[in-house]
Amino acid sequence: MFEVQGSIGAVRGFRVAGIHGGLKKSGAPDLALIVADRLCVAAGVFTRNLAKAAPILVSQEYLRTHAQTIRAVIVNTTCANALTGKKGMDDARQVTRLVADGLGLQAPQQVLPMSTGVIGTLLPMDKIASAIPQAISRLGQDWQAAAQAIMTTDTRPKMASVCVETAEGSYTIAGISKGAGMIAPNMATMLGIIATDAKISLPIAQRTLHTANEVSFNRIVVDGDTSTNDCVFLLANGASGVAIDKPSELALFERALTEVCVKLAQAIVRDGEGATKFITLRVIHAQDAASAAQIAHTIAASPLVKTAFFGQDANWGRIVAAAGRAGQPFDPDRAQLWIAPGESLPNSGHGLLLFKHGTVAKYSEADAAAIFREPSISVTLDCGVGGRGSAVVWTCDLSREYVDINADYRS
Amino acid sequence: MFEVQGSIGAVRGFRVAGIHGGLKKSGAPDLALIVADRLCVAAGVFTRNLAKAAPILVSQEYLRTHAQTIRAVIVNTTCANALTGKKGMDDARQVTRLVADGLGLQAPQQVLPMSTGVIGTLLPMDKIASAIPQAISRLGQDWQAAAQAIMTTDTRPKMASVCVETAEGSYTIAGISKGAGMIAPNMATMLGIIATDAKISLPIAQRTLHTANEVSFNRIVVDGDTSTNDCVFLLANGASGVAIDKPSELALFERALTEVCVKLAQAIVRDGEGATKFITLRVIHAQDAASAAQIAHTIAASPLVKTAFFGQDANWGRIVAAAGRAGQPFDPDRAQLWIAPGESLPNSGHGLLLFKHGTVAKYSEADAAAIFREPSISVTLDCGVGGRGSAVVWTCDLSREYVDINADYRS
Repeated sequence: MFEVQGSIGAVRGFRVAGIHGGLKKSGAPDLALIVADRLCVAAGVFTRNLAKAAPILVSQEYLRTHAQTIRAVIVNTTCANALTGKKGMDDARQVTRLVADGLGLQAPQQVLPMSTGVIGTLLPMDKIASAIPQAISRLGQDWQAAAQAIMTTDTRPKMASVCVETAEGSYTIAGISKGAGMIAPNMATMLGIIATDAKISLPIAQRTLHTANEVSFNRIVVDGDTSTNDCVFLLANGASGVAIDKPSELALFERALTEVCVKLAQAIVRDGEGATKFITLRVIHAQDAASAAQIAHTIAASPLVKTAFFGQDANWGRIVAAAGRAGQPFDPDRAQLWIAPGESLPNSGHGLLLFKHGTVAKYSEADAAAIFREPSISVTLDCGVGGRGSAVVWTCDLSREYVDINADYRS
Repeated sequence: MFEVQGSIGAVRGFRVAGIHGGLKKSGAPDLALIVADRLCVAAGVFTRNLAKAAPILVSQEYLRTHAQTIRAVIVNTTCANALTGKKGMDDARQVTRLVADGLGLQAPQQVLPMSTGVIGTLLPMDKIASAIPQAISRLGQDWQAAAQAIMTTDTRPKMASVCVETAEGSYTIAGISKGAGMIAPNMATMLGIIATDAKISLPIAQRTLHTANEVSFNRIVVDGDTSTNDCVFLLANGASGVAIDKPSELALFERALTEVCVKLAQAIVRDGEGATKFITLRVIHAQDAASAAQIAHTIAASPLVKTAFFGQDANWGRIVAAAGRAGQPFDPDRAQLWIAPGESLPNSGHGLLLFKHGTVAKYSEADAAAIFREPSISVTLDCGVGGRGSAVVWTCDLSREYVDINADYRS
């Protein structure tokens, strides 16, 4: 019915810019602006870290009063504006004021701020103040430039879009995201901005974003760290004239939004810091869905599991051992573990059985080694407790390069 | 009153051996035996991983019936005998039978088995069967040989001992430990065997081992992984004739045992896989002790915190961000963070203040950088919630070498 693209043409009624505003020493793009030409309904999902960055707190404040009149999102890189006290809050508000003034908006509360970068340093307000008019002057349809301008340790821009045909006409859902490290469930260092020209109500925006987020951005693990800063916004400006109000249309919208979010989330894992493998991890027959997700996240965050994938070593014992310490019901004597190449399950079932009923299964080490040499590997773990809970998490390996990137990040 | 040594002379009524039994391809020692010449009271603390290795299950079973008549501990490396099903259980019991027969004991239940190594492979029973008589023939006072024979990725043997003088005479508490990776709270891949010639009751052995374990082996983090196998045993044979039965003697025994356990636990972190830094992490003014421990463990297990230490980068924001996602009460607006060189707090308080009341403190980057270049660093975090909870955790950094070691472990 629709197909998610890895690029973005245009979204009616939105203009974007991604520019170099003097923040990155390299001269790379470092400031992005997304502007709607009419009032948007907006929803956000935010980090659960208690040390929330100033732009998170300001965005939450603005959405409490202006969620139906949002007009823009402004994103800076290099400085997270996190753990920066009252001055950080003042700066975040001042950034939104500068954007609102530049665009001739009624209130700064119509502009949602996002920041990503080093924690504990203040925003370079002079540079941002000169960059904002420049960004406004460059507003257009170049979503790739915007996606590039929100990158930090990312090696490539992350975009996804889908065009949904309906009886009333078509609408687009398009999004950009960033994030490569500090990625864990519950909104780790990642930013996502999703724009749609569908016409939706505020409750629908909020509910569908939460639902989509739960099975996309909250199901990726790079390193298990959860950041101070990160959030995903959904902005809907209604410019397509297609109103999402019937149940069947709503279901379709939610599915399309979810697929865009999954594509953006997977792009983050594929570009994980130093990642050489893309791992799809399915946990089945857990007690319930939350239990399945907890087991999957524990496996995905295990340094020993991740280094085994990096070493292309079919060391399945580490996967089962990680499941055993997840704090959830798990029965090693009934558990089973399969691996398969690629991202999808093979038609023949779950793939190569490595572990069954408490002990190693009969398989050829050569077959297992061949799968572990693949760039994409699927792992399926049956928890052996006979429940109906299942979850899918996407993760990557842990390489020497991850250490290099993060040992030298500030320097 | 006593001083913990990093070596072991002898413990009355105990003999030990550490030999090469053909398990390690390198020819290094790989099998250790600890034997008491009379019945021991024995206690154990075990991994909380649900995927418990066969030797763990067998030891738990034996201690239920024979905790007052234990005579030996047998340890093999290279194979964890974990996730090995019924055959693994049979093998673990057979190992204890071979030792009991060789020593002329009444029952195999008087021998506690320990294994460490790769998960999911079966014990090489032929090799172990020939090695056991050899180990028995070599029993003596060479504790260093025993400590060497339980090493896996460890680079050095780990020993600690203390001689306690009392009015009734003196007694010794001595222990060996192993572990370098898969180290997390709650009995990660680490083995510890502590022998004492003090005369103690079973309830006292159990209680003091649990208490000592809680502030030693359960307070170290290398990589956050918790293993299938690991446990600490305390064996008391009473050979010194010094009975621990008065409250003041009991307090002294518990303190001495705790110091031995702390020394053995710290030795594991100092020898952490690829570790270049020894970090003492103090969390204070948390809601309660459990909350403080949870926050400290979250910081200690954070890959971003660990890589910052490896990079000698005073990136304190990552420490506060990790505290914020620990799932415990934490107030960044009242929190404070200090660093100091070395393992002990400086007399002048907590050291260099980096973060205070929600924002960066006034400090010199050169001072902070100098501390981060030290091999030992102390970090103190005030959680800002005004509680009385505190905890100390020891951890190390995450280096390229950790990845190398664990990517290539099975090969």
